[in-house]
Amino acid sequence: MLRFISLKKAWDVLRSVSAPSPRKKLIPVEHCAGCISAEDICSDIDVPGHDIAVFDGYAVLAEDVFSASPSNPILLRLIKGSSISPGEARAICVGDILPSGANAVVPKEFVKEHDSFIEVFRRVAPYAYVARRGEDIRRGGVLVKRGELIDPFRQALLMRGLIEEVAVYEKVNIGLIVIGDELTRDMNQVREGKVLDVTSSIVSSILEPYAHVKDYGIIPDDIKEIENVLSRSAEENDLVVTLGGTSMGPKDYTVRAVRSIGDVLFHGISIMPGRPAAVGKVHGKLVFVFSGLPVAAYNELKLLLEPFLLRRVYGSSTRPIPIKARATTRIPSRPGVIETVRVRLMIGDSELLIVPLRSRGSGILSSLALADGVVVVPEELEGYEKGEVLNVFRIGDPWGVVYVQEDIS
Amino acid sequence: MLRFISLKKAWDVLRSVSAPSPRKKLIPVEHCAGCISAEDICSDIDVPGHDIAVFDGYAVLAEDVFSASPSNPILLRLIKGSSISPGEARAICVGDILPSGANAVVPKEFVKEHDSFIEVFRRVAPYAYVARRGEDIRRGGVLVKRGELIDPFRQALLMRGLIEEVAVYEKVNIGLIVIGDELTRDMNQVREGKVLDVTSSIVSSILEPYAHVKDYGIIPDDIKEIENVLSRSAEENDLVVTLGGTSMGPKDYTVRAVRSIGDVLFHGISIMPGRPAAVGKVHGKLVFVFSGLPVAAYNELKLLLEPFLLRRVYGSSTRPIPIKARATTRIPSRPGVIETVRVRLMIGDSELLIVPLRSRGSGILSSLALADGVVVVPEELEGYEKGEVLNVFRIGDPWGVVYVQEDIS
Repeated sequence: MLRFISLKKAWDVLRSVSAPSPRKKLIPVEHCAGCISAEDICSDIDVPGHDIAVFDGYAVLAEDVFSASPSNPILLRLIKGSSISPGEARAICVGDILPSGANAVVPKEFVKEHDSFIEVFRRVAPYAYVARRGEDIRRGGVLVKRGELIDPFRQALLMRGLIEEVAVYEKVNIGLIVIGDELTRDMNQVREGKVLDVTSSIVSSILEPYAHVKDYGIIPDDIKEIENVLSRSAEENDLVVTLGGTSMGPKDYTVRAVRSIGDVLFHGISIMPGRPAAVGKVHGKLVFVFSGLPVAAYNELKLLLEPFLLRRVYGSSTRPIPIKARATTRIPSRPGVIETVRVRLMIGDSELLIVPLRSRGSGILSSLALADGVVVVPEELEGYEKGEVLNVFRIGDPWGVVYVQEDIS
Repeated sequence: MLRFISLKKAWDVLRSVSAPSPRKKLIPVEHCAGCISAEDICSDIDVPGHDIAVFDGYAVLAEDVFSASPSNPILLRLIKGSSISPGEARAICVGDILPSGANAVVPKEFVKEHDSFIEVFRRVAPYAYVARRGEDIRRGGVLVKRGELIDPFRQALLMRGLIEEVAVYEKVNIGLIVIGDELTRDMNQVREGKVLDVTSSIVSSILEPYAHVKDYGIIPDDIKEIENVLSRSAEENDLVVTLGGTSMGPKDYTVRAVRSIGDVLFHGISIMPGRPAAVGKVHGKLVFVFSGLPVAAYNELKLLLEPFLLRRVYGSSTRPIPIKARATTRIPSRPGVIETVRVRLMIGDSELLIVPLRSRGSGILSSLALADGVVVVPEELEGYEKGEVLNVFRIGDPWGVVYVQEDIS
């Protein structure tokens, strides 16, 4: 019989082991989207470098048009050149640098232009329709944090800060092993009674932003074969993930194989789905032993491996924002177990409503594919009551980091 | 001076024009992640095909253990084989088919096993720890809808439904033209006074799931050159997007070029940022004329082109779910204009809080890169008051579909 340790205890272990150190490399900013930043990247410059117009119109001194209104137009002398004096205005286009002496832009539509002067029909506040020097990017400001996945918006921000090369982490290598006589990737064999392995493709897609995943295929329930591929994959990668054969059934050889050629750090955690998860070490490399069932593997990955990669491997401080929503039914849970419930969200009158997906089986893939998010019931509760406002995280967000202790880096 | 039409009127136009028809193709399910489904895909089979155990334990008849408790263990005869009778139990592993006659699984931990019988210490409900036939996928149920972007979870669901080939749309081709003498993609030229084009990379990344984007580079403010590239890109693609030169300044040639070789359907919409957007037609292909400023282009894309691609080109019915959050300050807006405000979200006591990003300039890229989402103020309002609960959409969600009329397909 397995003894289940708390998630907190599991993280005490994961905090104490040595984590892989990804190598840093410098790459051109044009290629950094999708990469993980290896340092806090600061700007050397102000953007914009000057006060600039954000509307087509006329550069003015705001104080000059303070009393302007449709019934009291203010007349300003129209000039050209790079500076204006009180009583003067200059035509300006979006993106142009404000002439010195000007501190605001009056949009065209509030102005009537004549040959040598304009009439202004509306007041503007100082710096109205102006982007001030440094408003977009301030010199010294952090553009991207260490451990952050650089998205196209952040990449554009780096480019705008004139960062030409970006220090990113080389992604770690993860070996992925699927274990089970019953499994196949050939649909024709499913018709002959085998079970289709879909868990590995889900796990690979979740790991893809963080790692190069090397697929070792499906290994039969044979302890020698499992030991061989564990040994080889530990040598060839920074980390290993196994799927399947992790419970205590007669054919569950995975943990036995880890123990026979390495160490088992723990086996069994009070999380559902996914209680039989284990973590071990083979040839000094961590082995995350996860379920072969897709929903259990998803939960184990979200609560153990994804936070480990984010916090311990890449030093990320990311923290997803929960959606607040109200439970439309009671959400029962077993005390002593952290339970992850897949839910759908519905739009209510002035709030969002939570509809738990009924299926709790670890193999019920549709409960993942159809879910909008998850609700995590902590171990000290027997569930949530109907009507409670709860935190919901999106299926794809790295929500596990919220449920492991803060300081795990 | 531009006359701004309402977004509703703009959509009256976009609903009446003919949209590109993407071609369908059949691809193996293994390659369908990231593709757009060309039809509703239904399952021919139930998954699981039988009632199966979702826990290691013993298959029983729930009625037999109805009165079981720690002080009143129920004894069941342990048998082997594919059927049980009342008073009998059979050992079962996760994923095994339930023997006929059984209707529940008692987890191992509630059972003491002896040589030829077991003691059960806890009652289970009928179908406890069982995934019922069709619970994951029901025969005839829709696995993926037409127009849906197939993510890895959906792909796994299709595989589990034994769908071998998937009808997907070939993505449409979009020509992307950037217009403006002041623009460059070379950072060294920025130090000499040019403006770095970051808008095109943001637009490309947003279009990437929907289209093959062909980049026509940066074209100077020369009406003949603009006409030439417009003509060529319209011939070579299903749609064209231009960035820049769309306002009414002296160097804003884009709309003039569209008019000279084609038609302008409208120019100027009451949305902010991005009021000078236009849509035209060249050689029978639609041309979306957007701003060169990143925030304006983002908003135009979200309110015009993304809904057009989703609803009219691909027939998608997707509808993102808003996050409900409370405004911490007043959010002012100009009446008669639909204004998109970039906001950050903070976690409050029992709700999320909205902090609008101050910068409203269309060129302030950081207001996009740092935002968690957007709040859209409708045209009939002068803004939202402090304390109101508002809908916030994530920056990356296709939120524009919510703000155009329902039936635009």
